[in-house]
Amino acid sequence: MSNQPQTLAKQPHIIVIGGGFGGLNVVKALQDAPVQITLIDRHNYHLFRPLLYQVAMAGLSPADIAAPLRVIFKRHQNVRTILADVTDIDAEQRQVILASGERLAYDLLVVATGAVYDYFGHASWAHHAPSLETIESALEIRRRVLSAYEAAELEPEPAARQSWMTFVIIGGGPTGVELAGAIGEMANRTLHENFRQIDPADTKILLIEALDRLLIAFPSDLSDKAHQALEKLGVTVRTNTKVIEIAEQHITVQTGDQLEKIAAHTMMWAAGVKANALGQVLQQRAGADLDRKGRVKVLPNLTLPNHPEIFAIGDLTYFEQDSQPLAGLAPVAIQQGQHVAKQILRHLSGQPLQQFRYWDKGIMATIGRASAVANIKNIHLSGYIAWLAWLFIHVIQLIGFRNRLSVLSQWVWNYFTYARSVRLIVDRRADATDDQSKVEPSKVQSAKEL
Amino acid sequence: MSNQPQTLAKQPHIIVIGGGFGGLNVVKALQDAPVQITLIDRHNYHLFRPLLYQVAMAGLSPADIAAPLRVIFKRHQNVRTILADVTDIDAEQRQVILASGERLAYDLLVVATGAVYDYFGHASWAHHAPSLETIESALEIRRRVLSAYEAAELEPEPAARQSWMTFVIIGGGPTGVELAGAIGEMANRTLHENFRQIDPADTKILLIEALDRLLIAFPSDLSDKAHQALEKLGVTVRTNTKVIEIAEQHITVQTGDQLEKIAAHTMMWAAGVKANALGQVLQQRAGADLDRKGRVKVLPNLTLPNHPEIFAIGDLTYFEQDSQPLAGLAPVAIQQGQHVAKQILRHLSGQPLQQFRYWDKGIMATIGRASAVANIKNIHLSGYIAWLAWLFIHVIQLIGFRNRLSVLSQWVWNYFTYARSVRLIVDRRADATDDQSKVEPSKVQSAKEL
Repeated sequence: MSNQPQTLAKQPHIIVIGGGFGGLNVVKALQDAPVQITLIDRHNYHLFRPLLYQVAMAGLSPADIAAPLRVIFKRHQNVRTILADVTDIDAEQRQVILASGERLAYDLLVVATGAVYDYFGHASWAHHAPSLETIESALEIRRRVLSAYEAAELEPEPAARQSWMTFVIIGGGPTGVELAGAIGEMANRTLHENFRQIDPADTKILLIEALDRLLIAFPSDLSDKAHQALEKLGVTVRTNTKVIEIAEQHITVQTGDQLEKIAAHTMMWAAGVKANALGQVLQQRAGADLDRKGRVKVLPNLTLPNHPEIFAIGDLTYFEQDSQPLAGLAPVAIQQGQHVAKQILRHLSGQPLQQFRYWDKGIMATIGRASAVANIKNIHLSGYIAWLAWLFIHVIQLIGFRNRLSVLSQWVWNYFTYARSVRLIVDRRADATDDQSKVEPSKVQSAKEL
Repeated sequence: MSNQPQTLAKQPHIIVIGGGFGGLNVVKALQDAPVQITLIDRHNYHLFRPLLYQVAMAGLSPADIAAPLRVIFKRHQNVRTILADVTDIDAEQRQVILASGERLAYDLLVVATGAVYDYFGHASWAHHAPSLETIESALEIRRRVLSAYEAAELEPEPAARQSWMTFVIIGGGPTGVELAGAIGEMANRTLHENFRQIDPADTKILLIEALDRLLIAFPSDLSDKAHQALEKLGVTVRTNTKVIEIAEQHITVQTGDQLEKIAAHTMMWAAGVKANALGQVLQQRAGADLDRKGRVKVLPNLTLPNHPEIFAIGDLTYFEQDSQPLAGLAPVAIQQGQHVAKQILRHLSGQPLQQFRYWDKGIMATIGRASAVANIKNIHLSGYIAWLAWLFIHVIQLIGFRNRLSVLSQWVWNYFTYARSVRLIVDRRADATDDQSKVEPSKVQSAKEL
């Protein structure tokens, strides 16, 4: 589509892997620079992950928090977007290798593929307790939570009914707190009067945390505030409690020496994370050092040792500032992306690279509908005012005017009506039809289980 | 949850199977009547099917056109909603049998399970050319259409590229016309400037119709208008053309004696329909007569012969008025649902049942963004004015104030921006994660094909 292939071919080619907060900000800052950029992502959209829990909890639709990458960069002819999996990096030849086998040559490479939830070696747990990672997994969590109430409504036996109405969230970080708060709100307000055999207010919500308090990244007074706000929503917070086993219909936890088996069908995992598998590729192919979570240790200027042409940023990386590792937060990835873009321009004009320094604007987490905690430059906020700040900051950071408008108007709507308008149970199977003649044994089984 | 089980148990129990236009209107009209109602559906929502093509074409989110059944009837304690598959009906014992094996006794039964697309015995075609039936299938069509452009962008070979950019829609009724028009608009406007290697304006859209004109239910001047409007959007309309074969990467069609093989990856089926499988159950269990499309022939009062306690309505049924069969339209199902509710009240008060008569308010179909055809009491409308009428009528018929507001505002937005904000390719697999280490062979293969 370009009219000047000659000129363009001479410009340095930058490949950015990952269209999350880090990668997106690299490309944005370079979209008018004299470089050719190829952005590779396995999804065709940028996802605003801080609001993904609202998709899982039926408050927002996926499209409200996602923006197609092609639309974001549509006016910038120097940006090419590719929907593909990167399986390998040939650091010698400076090539990125796609799942199709295709090789793309780069002059400079930015790896920003993020982190995934870590089940600490228990592969089967992922099946029973999905984590909030992608749109797909958010829709799966939504399906399980809503289906559990449908199953409870049909279950005559009280103990079995209660196990359908028991939700266990593992991990007391911001995501776990947000999920637990949202279920509490749904049980107490949204589902009120919706059922005939069950009372959704009987819902049991357990939030399991291995450490001695929730939200360990926050000051302890805000942990206490969050704890109290959750209890008010009917959430039972279990600190100092470890998960021993997760199965189809129960979870076993340990507090001190006490083992406890809890009957539940719906579990969610929001515990530890590890780096995306491209970290290992960088270790094997570019000699990068990894920490125990598989995160790539980068130099202060965000390049890899011995590879000044490879940058790595965001949750994929391990970065120490003032002898403290930076947390895996969106603002860190955003600032690192902006920093890398600036370094690329310096590199091209022959200037030396600068060190990255994170500017901490604060952290926040929300608990249900009108409560949050925030630590902003050591000012501790909680309750309604923190929630308003949380809402404001998240809405303005969304990509695209339409998304901002849509999320804000739905929030206002949900706030006053307690509605969760996106309460659709969408089948996992793409070939789900309304033809009852096509009912297969597996479907019948699932209807029974349900 | 009821305080008066004694009284309630004495009220007649009405089971309604199917929460589409027909079933929903039965329950709505009876929600304050002295009866107990159980509404059974295999989904937890009522779906506004006339706008389902917009979900497939990335203009709307599923939640915009669906409303949870529990929310619709939340304030009506005499309505119970069950999410389940009905597998059998025992007309002797007056019981409905669920997939779980559970039996529910009824005094009166309303069967309103609708129709499904018919592939005329070619089961494999359903895989290659999905039809617009459920939210799941709409999302699958969206995924295929958007993925085809992504594959074309990566395909260096011109013929292969063109086959990715060729879309074939089979069936020139309202749904086929709406799908073809929406793809035409997307190709010419929405995707403009989004790609670097391909020009979406090169998209080839074929609309295949076996009869000699589109929209056979409309007067022929409106068929011509629709035909012209589609050609303007870049759609090639092929009337008098039959489908001979549908395979993974091509479709073979026949016009007169001419066979033609068209290379294409993305096909959509919008041809004939047949009754849902509960029609056969009614034949076997209640002696109902079926037509060749499996539709249940009902008496003029909408009950089954010899079974005055069983009503059947909507697309599931065959009903003649003035010696002409009624078409499978939403307004027919709605009016039949309202009629049945009235007859149930008459039956309970000992009055004789009345015959149903359809009051034809007109039919309409939309073609792209600002064009439609409508035949309202023999007044033929087309173009912009018909489109405004179409828009108005569809928005006010949506269930729920929030859905109306959301659809209308998105339409205004899309109208002025040509945007299709819901352009998300969501994976079919629920366990899709961002962990590149979990890439399976099948996924790699599909990425390659893609």
